[in-house]
Amino acid sequence: MPVRERSKPGSQSALRLSNQRRILSTVSGGPTTQADIARTTGLSTATVSNIVKVLVELGLVATSPTTSSGRRAQLVSLSSTDGAVSVGIDFGRRHVRIIVATLDYRVIAEKEVEIPAGYTAAEALDIAANLLTSTLNHARVPRSSVLGVGVGVPGPIDRRTGTVVDGAILPEWVGVTVGMVEEIFELPVYLENDANLGVLAEVTWGSHAGTPTVVFVKVGTGIGAGLILNGVPYSGNIGLTGEIGHTPIYEHGLLCRCGNRGCLETVASTTIMIELLSRTLDRPVRTRDIVRMALEGDERAIRVVEEAGLAVGRSIAAITNLINPHTIIVGGPLTGLGEMLLGPIRSALKRYAVPMIMETTDLVMSSLGERAEALGGAALVLQQAGIKTAVS
Amino acid sequence: MPVRERSKPGSQSALRLSNQRRILSTVSGGPTTQADIARTTGLSTATVSNIVKVLVELGLVATSPTTSSGRRAQLVSLSSTDGAVSVGIDFGRRHVRIIVATLDYRVIAEKEVEIPAGYTAAEALDIAANLLTSTLNHARVPRSSVLGVGVGVPGPIDRRTGTVVDGAILPEWVGVTVGMVEEIFELPVYLENDANLGVLAEVTWGSHAGTPTVVFVKVGTGIGAGLILNGVPYSGNIGLTGEIGHTPIYEHGLLCRCGNRGCLETVASTTIMIELLSRTLDRPVRTRDIVRMALEGDERAIRVVEEAGLAVGRSIAAITNLINPHTIIVGGPLTGLGEMLLGPIRSALKRYAVPMIMETTDLVMSSLGERAEALGGAALVLQQAGIKTAVS
Repeated sequence: MPVRERSKPGSQSALRLSNQRRILSTVSGGPTTQADIARTTGLSTATVSNIVKVLVELGLVATSPTTSSGRRAQLVSLSSTDGAVSVGIDFGRRHVRIIVATLDYRVIAEKEVEIPAGYTAAEALDIAANLLTSTLNHARVPRSSVLGVGVGVPGPIDRRTGTVVDGAILPEWVGVTVGMVEEIFELPVYLENDANLGVLAEVTWGSHAGTPTVVFVKVGTGIGAGLILNGVPYSGNIGLTGEIGHTPIYEHGLLCRCGNRGCLETVASTTIMIELLSRTLDRPVRTRDIVRMALEGDERAIRVVEEAGLAVGRSIAAITNLINPHTIIVGGPLTGLGEMLLGPIRSALKRYAVPMIMETTDLVMSSLGERAEALGGAALVLQQAGIKTAVS
Repeated sequence: MPVRERSKPGSQSALRLSNQRRILSTVSGGPTTQADIARTTGLSTATVSNIVKVLVELGLVATSPTTSSGRRAQLVSLSSTDGAVSVGIDFGRRHVRIIVATLDYRVIAEKEVEIPAGYTAAEALDIAANLLTSTLNHARVPRSSVLGVGVGVPGPIDRRTGTVVDGAILPEWVGVTVGMVEEIFELPVYLENDANLGVLAEVTWGSHAGTPTVVFVKVGTGIGAGLILNGVPYSGNIGLTGEIGHTPIYEHGLLCRCGNRGCLETVASTTIMIELLSRTLDRPVRTRDIVRMALEGDERAIRVVEEAGLAVGRSIAAITNLINPHTIIVGGPLTGLGEMLLGPIRSALKRYAVPMIMETTDLVMSSLGERAEALGGAALVLQQAGIKTAVS
């Protein structure tokens, strides 16, 4: 759950929000009269009328007079897609990517810029703010049309405080808050962990819409999982979910930056793969080199990929035994490896998962590649606004 | 999710069920007029009136005339608790337990009988059917007042078919279906895995009502977990969740009945504890002996308990890193060990979980002990009927 969400389940405001979403969900199927909305949802016409008023003020829907069975009626439709947009921004170790999307999920602008390694969060946010302004200008979208910005950061977010906490893959981000980002962007901001945005993108823009239970495992500089459970993005107690990178798999493995030993990240992250390959090649290697070398048949690259895959697969087996998902999606900068990474993951899954669970779980590579997180950021804004998605 | 639930999310019947639960939830706070129900829920008075009619037919609520602001109105209240009851039945390795509860969660009858080890499912179900009849007679509850029977079995249930599947702790249960049990009990039956009933009991009858995310880890003949996620019992894709007993923790450990190697169950179940102690004592040991011996200070019993606790704790750490629960409850026949079992679990959790996640997670022993599963069975029936609980 992103950090702007404050309403308690069961409270009046949660009920209002739930009714709001029901109505938006109905309208997003096509223009509908208020009377029909009431019939479909079972809500009273007074409730429907009140909520529609609020949604009109928010700019999410528009009303127009019509007739129904010869009587005057109010037709409610989603606001023109020439209007509001949502923005997704994703920060990686060496890049920032922006995506601008309309309310009906059309991407109208997309851009990625490199940022220097070892940047501070302030520097990265400044670069992103400029990118945001130039992208909106270029797409001729006025700032006032931006519903919000969904921002992905490579670290866990404590949703009690809306702060990036220790354990961030990029330590530069620790301590950054929603408020800080909102001040710089001058727009409403939703801050979320990158793997959580990845899974949201997969059920929104990917081919997994409507899948109730999805695990998105991002294998990159760090390793983390985003979860959709029972059709809803899952955030647990304080928002620190999917921290599978810090579950030890080798009792006497390397020390991890988290203080534990033999964590999955010390075995299967691109960080360790780069370290191993750079040492043996005696020159600096980048993530894209791992993919290129392995695809070209370099035995050393194939070996590190295979061992990473086996370790990731073992962790995924434990996840699978626990939450019995419909689908597991592997994402991150190594997706280009395809079966070369997926094969060893599948082998380990077969070895360590309960057979009947493994047989009924789909294991696939993300089709969104490196766009997943920014797409997830844009989806998050729309989802928060109550626009119909697979997960609302 | 228990096996009688057939309605698809988002379908008309799911919407009706959701509205039904909203109304029951409102009424369970005390008698309420139909107009007030409409105001509270935002539903139209016609919808409320229709659903109340259905609930009256189901015997769940009763209506009585009243006046409100000087006008005639219909007062809706939960049916008299002299009426409908729900029944929970739990099958263990050596016992069957029954609990009869009223709609307002009063236990009005409870009984446990021993059954011979190595029983067939048919024998156990016959014993349970007789126990059901005699318990209802003794409590002077007519069979027609039984809303349903929630039955706990020590194995995973494939909810696509409503069948106990392979992996059951007691292989005798494999292949048993809801239909078979309904035929024998001549009542509506909800079949559920025992650990899933355990967690439902904890949030219904235990001190964990209202806790949104709870993991109940049952350490017994087998080891399994029941999950409440986002306030809802979680059942994943085909209902095979919480199978943590079959996640390998020792690469070269013992072969497990599931075909994997070094599974948690081969290290920390009461089965293996009994095997280890019986061998060293050269006489048969029962579960209750482990508890007694350890509490009396027997070093051998203390050692097997400690090693089991460390292994269970390591598995719980992986769960904690993944789903960041509010509360972890340890249940099963060893709860009497208290801190003797909880201590090593906590040590392992501290060692293997992400510190900030561990610090914000409560780890406690079940206060319901061996009653948890039968209580959960009774709670399941009430929950399915839509009676307000912490999790509906």
